[in-house]
Amino acid sequence: MQKTMCGLVKQEAGPGDFVYRTDLPVPEIGDDEVLIKVRCSTLCGTDFHIMDWDTWSQKRVRPPMIPGHETAGDIVAVGKNVTERKVGDRVSCETHISCGNCWFCRHDMRHICKNTKIFGVTENGAFAEYAKIRWDVTFLLDDTISYEAACMFEPMGAGVHGVEAADVAGKVVLVSGCGPIGLTAVSACKTFGAVKVIACDLIDEKLETAKEMGADYVFNSSKVDLVKEVRALTDGMGADAAIDITGAGASINTDLKCVRAAGRVVCVGLPSKPVTITDMTDDLIYREVVLTGISGRKIWDTWVDFAKVMKGPYWKLERVIGGKYALSDFQSAVKAIRDGVPGKMLLYPTLP
Amino acid sequence: MQKTMCGLVKQEAGPGDFVYRTDLPVPEIGDDEVLIKVRCSTLCGTDFHIMDWDTWSQKRVRPPMIPGHETAGDIVAVGKNVTERKVGDRVSCETHISCGNCWFCRHDMRHICKNTKIFGVTENGAFAEYAKIRWDVTFLLDDTISYEAACMFEPMGAGVHGVEAADVAGKVVLVSGCGPIGLTAVSACKTFGAVKVIACDLIDEKLETAKEMGADYVFNSSKVDLVKEVRALTDGMGADAAIDITGAGASINTDLKCVRAAGRVVCVGLPSKPVTITDMTDDLIYREVVLTGISGRKIWDTWVDFAKVMKGPYWKLERVIGGKYALSDFQSAVKAIRDGVPGKMLLYPTLP
Amino acid sequence: MQKTMCGLVKQEAGPGDFVYRTDLPVPEIGDDEVLIKVRCSTLCGTDFHIMDWDTWSQKRVRPPMIPGHETAGDIVAVGKNVTERKVGDRVSCETHISCGNCWFCRHDMRHICKNTKIFGVTENGAFAEYAKIRWDVTFLLDDTISYEAACMFEPMGAGVHGVEAADVAGKVVLVSGCGPIGLTAVSACKTFGAVKVIACDLIDEKLETAKEMGADYVFNSSKVDLVKEVRALTDGMGADAAIDITGAGASINTDLKCVRAAGRVVCVGLPSKPVTITDMTDDLIYREVVLTGISGRKIWDTWVDFAKVMKGPYWKLERVIGGKYALSDFQSAVKAIRDGVPGKMLLYPTLP
Amino acid sequence: MQKTMCGLVKQEAGPGDFVYRTDLPVPEIGDDEVLIKVRCSTLCGTDFHIMDWDTWSQKRVRPPMIPGHETAGDIVAVGKNVTERKVGDRVSCETHISCGNCWFCRHDMRHICKNTKIFGVTENGAFAEYAKIRWDVTFLLDDTISYEAACMFEPMGAGVHGVEAADVAGKVVLVSGCGPIGLTAVSACKTFGAVKVIACDLIDEKLETAKEMGADYVFNSSKVDLVKEVRALTDGMGADAAIDITGAGASINTDLKCVRAAGRVVCVGLPSKPVTITDMTDDLIYREVVLTGISGRKIWDTWVDFAKVMKGPYWKLERVIGGKYALSDFQSAVKAIRDGVPGKMLLYPTLP
Repeated sequence: MQKTMCGLVKQEAGPGDFVYRTDLPVPEIGDDEVLIKVRCSTLCGTDFHIMDWDTWSQKRVRPPMIPGHETAGDIVAVGKNVTERKVGDRVSCETHISCGNCWFCRHDMRHICKNTKIFGVTENGAFAEYAKIRWDVTFLLDDTISYEAACMFEPMGAGVHGVEAADVAGKVVLVSGCGPIGLTAVSACKTFGAVKVIACDLIDEKLETAKEMGADYVFNSSKVDLVKEVRALTDGMGADAAIDITGAGASINTDLKCVRAAGRVVCVGLPSKPVTITDMTDDLIYREVVLTGISGRKIWDTWVDFAKVMKGPYWKLERVIGGKYALSDFQSAVKAIRDGVPGKMLLYPTLP
Repeated sequence: MQKTMCGLVKQEAGPGDFVYRTDLPVPEIGDDEVLIKVRCSTLCGTDFHIMDWDTWSQKRVRPPMIPGHETAGDIVAVGKNVTERKVGDRVSCETHISCGNCWFCRHDMRHICKNTKIFGVTENGAFAEYAKIRWDVTFLLDDTISYEAACMFEPMGAGVHGVEAADVAGKVVLVSGCGPIGLTAVSACKTFGAVKVIACDLIDEKLETAKEMGADYVFNSSKVDLVKEVRALTDGMGADAAIDITGAGASINTDLKCVRAAGRVVCVGLPSKPVTITDMTDDLIYREVVLTGISGRKIWDTWVDFAKVMKGPYWKLERVIGGKYALSDFQSAVKAIRDGVPGKMLLYPTLP
Repeated sequence: MQKTMCGLVKQEAGPGDFVYRTDLPVPEIGDDEVLIKVRCSTLCGTDFHIMDWDTWSQKRVRPPMIPGHETAGDIVAVGKNVTERKVGDRVSCETHISCGNCWFCRHDMRHICKNTKIFGVTENGAFAEYAKIRWDVTFLLDDTISYEAACMFEPMGAGVHGVEAADVAGKVVLVSGCGPIGLTAVSACKTFGAVKVIACDLIDEKLETAKEMGADYVFNSSKVDLVKEVRALTDGMGADAAIDITGAGASINTDLKCVRAAGRVVCVGLPSKPVTITDMTDDLIYREVVLTGISGRKIWDTWVDFAKVMKGPYWKLERVIGGKYALSDFQSAVKAIRDGVPGKMLLYPTLP
Repeated sequence: MQKTMCGLVKQEAGPGDFVYRTDLPVPEIGDDEVLIKVRCSTLCGTDFHIMDWDTWSQKRVRPPMIPGHETAGDIVAVGKNVTERKVGDRVSCETHISCGNCWFCRHDMRHICKNTKIFGVTENGAFAEYAKIRWDVTFLLDDTISYEAACMFEPMGAGVHGVEAADVAGKVVLVSGCGPIGLTAVSACKTFGAVKVIACDLIDEKLETAKEMGADYVFNSSKVDLVKEVRALTDGMGADAAIDITGAGASINTDLKCVRAAGRVVCVGLPSKPVTITDMTDDLIYREVVLTGISGRKIWDTWVDFAKVMKGPYWKLERVIGGKYALSDFQSAVKAIRDGVPGKMLLYPTLP
């Protein structure tokens, strides 16, 4: 087998884009690890944080390091303790490498493990020809799921997780924000039996896509009184649940007003500043509304559920892909994102 | 039977204290109602809102009206449709007169009925010798519960309801705020199996009482770093739940930091202004913390649970009573409250 | 308005078919009741129990009495206390006239009210031109639901209730028994997001209909090893839940073996004799399987959910109707059932 | 360190008591294991199955093998991957060595892991001076828990687990059967906030002990009509839950009748033959009663909860201990059990 490989590297502490290299050693796997031949990966906001070297990255990343944590490929070698994966398995990977032993891991919450390591952040990742990872952090793909689709499990799984937390079967659900994660949430709502999905965004084109992916009603929040529209669709009751993808304080306040008493607002989008709840007494306390959030993906519930969504009639891979690039040409993908091109950018170590 | 009775009256729209009168007609009951000879009642913050004639009152109160909604007495007459109450029954009353038919009433949430009438606010209340009310809004008292204790079901039931919403059995629970409702919450936590109850307040005397009523640990929030103390008591995990009685934004933010990931903050106290959640991403979303509130009392779960608390070893009636007055002398009770005397003020139409 | 009407009557205590009469007084309604002009009704097994005068009927029925409890019609008069229904409303009715005040009614379980009266059994029912009933026992129909479909809420609601109790969203569900209730359960499973519905029966024709109404896999239990087939479809795990419509002990034992550990078996069909659980230790206890049942319909959750099922793509009214008859010709409907003709028999006081 | 140790051995396939030997090699630990110096262990029914060589044992045990799976001791060596245990830690052990990766392990149900290995059954166990086990199958003891008490976690944890499954806070609970596991269940019910615990058994002495350990009411099932008594204590409603320790079909049928509609019967005791549910329609289906069972102990919830029970005022170690023996004298303990001496028999490799 080859000894060196190509890949991207965050070379040094400090701001600076990744560097494409062809002299990287192929990783050597430990007893509990597998070696994956990477088929494709996708760029994430996190990768830009690492290039920008923000505070979050400074605390976690130790250059030189291979980034990349949204990926799919084939297992080409397994460590000696590994019995549940074999050469030839097609897999995607979790980013959260949980300890398996803390209180959270023990209680079906390994996605909020308190000792988490992070693939492509605290550990070398997947922007390379090969990547290694602990075998039990891989998710087996069946033949109906393409490598490209499999790259979406991680970034859009948050949308599916939000739907899981909102308990949507038979319910009326508001999805606020129709980027790729919101669109995924819309299609997951429909897949799991929501009877009315109301989607809102500020951009009409996104609302059209939301309709294609299952939304029953769409509203441009900048053009209508959303609370009034939601009430009108629910006999004055309000929605049973809202899933917020925006992370905007104004949107979260609107969500609180759009749900019925004893309803639930699940935040998936991350506010970057303090959020002021304007009418906490009336909107949340008196009406016993639940406000909560989700982190990452339930391991492996969200993955299993997302696979169901992918196989259902609503989710559309082509609607969430923004472009395809050779890994060596990653700067073009980076530029596209910096230029505001929507959708996920796929990077191929070897173009298929 | 007598035709007139004494009682307090909100005479006119506009600011102004209640007026004591002796010429009020004894209420005539409808087919589904009962007539109660009032034994005692307690003053509530709501009564002060009505006297002050704030916006909330202006929308709901139609003077002249008899206030008072925290009460206990004996049934002395029943309407012709009433089969489940009889003359001689000792009862307390819910304030929320629910419709019984809306979606919430149908779903075990009659405390948030969307057509609620309010005893002593939208309807005549209990600051009088007699009061009438729909029979199914009365709660039967057994002989072990005094009239004075029974007056506490309504005002302090919110504390018990907060405990119900926090799911405390076997858990570590923080109670923020040790006024009468907080003290009731502390004792309810212990009654229902919480293994560690941590209480905090700004006043040391209240903390002493909290200890008497079941708190395992008490902290003066102005003197210690509460987050640090709670972590120290929980192996660094944080409390399983927090019950906020303060309604203060700073306290709610501290509560969010004191609970563990996937923990729960239940707001009982009502913020009078917007609440800014400082670190929503880190404190709530990433950690999947649930923030919610409660309204009034579950009907009748909270009452049944509170009766259990009253009969248990922790709750102490004498710790929550502030004074006893003849109804005719209600101005002295009002003055005591305005002077800051702590505890609930009992009013007796006829001194026992 | 007319003073007399036609209708069926159970004339005397003792075995004997209903009698068709045209001299019945039109019911006079009480203050809380509505008068319904019946459009159509359906025959139920219960009606045969009453004709046969079995023990169950002897305890509950006081002849002469008008039977019939699966019905739909128009409100033509309302009592003086009724504000939420009006003349012209199209409605169906619950059979369980709950008290509204017992512990169960208070806890969102009015379908198991301990003081239930039964429409068409303990009270006069709907096999007549007009029927009266307490207004809050009526369910409003929107224009998309025909009277015929509305007659199915009651008898097949049990199937929907079984699905509600089985928590099917995203799950693999086995439905044992494909009569009308089983078919309704199959379509409800699909409507509420079950990802694999496996249906079984002893009759191939019913399995064909099950496929039309949403079953993903069907098996003739007499021809295959069902446990083996279910395991094969679930990677050896077993189904997440089973809904038993058969009431047969053998089927219930198979259901227990077909579900995974910590799975759930919900009994909708009623065993007429003792049920022996063969391997209780291995099938239920060691594997923490839940065995439970449902009674009637959640009021009104099941109705609301069933309306969603009716409007979805799976449920097919024509598949559950067995025949249509004038009320005066009810003996033909009775004969059809006694001859084993499948499906529900509709009775029209006035043929449409 | 010594090379050989004393211990008990199941020498050969086939019926035959364990053999005491002094020439056993001290176990060598793997990278993820710890070596425990055993302080004491207890005999279990399972050990008698192994001696008797029944079908269950034939499938699982590969002699020669060291039995024993209820134990406590000190860690004296740790494997090179072990970071969360250290020499000197006092520990007890789970019997179920779960795989950590199957669907059940991933969903907080590692106690029903489908790949479970069993300490002292499929693997060498604890009836010896030293035992090795995977580090994450050990439970840390604090100083307040004696080795003797710690031996009770495993055998009596099932009682605590039954209480967890019955959701007892604020409830009325029936515990059927007052052997050591039933007594533990009684004390756990009280610790976690049950308001009325009703215990029954056929032997008056056991009922006396049940009272000491927290039962509010006790009944000798052979002398009273238990259903009637339970109804009398619950205003005719029935208990909220029943925990069955007996495994007897008659008892399970009585439990079903003793709980209220929508109540819950949790089976902890294991029936050794088919169980006939006499009135399944009336007792379970119409009343929507839940019948379920529990297996082993939730890992580690049950252990954590049991530690709380041990530290509370109800549980009494001395009430569940039957005798203390040197490991070399284990035949005396075996004889005591075969003679019907009640309580758990402690075996000490080295007498303290």
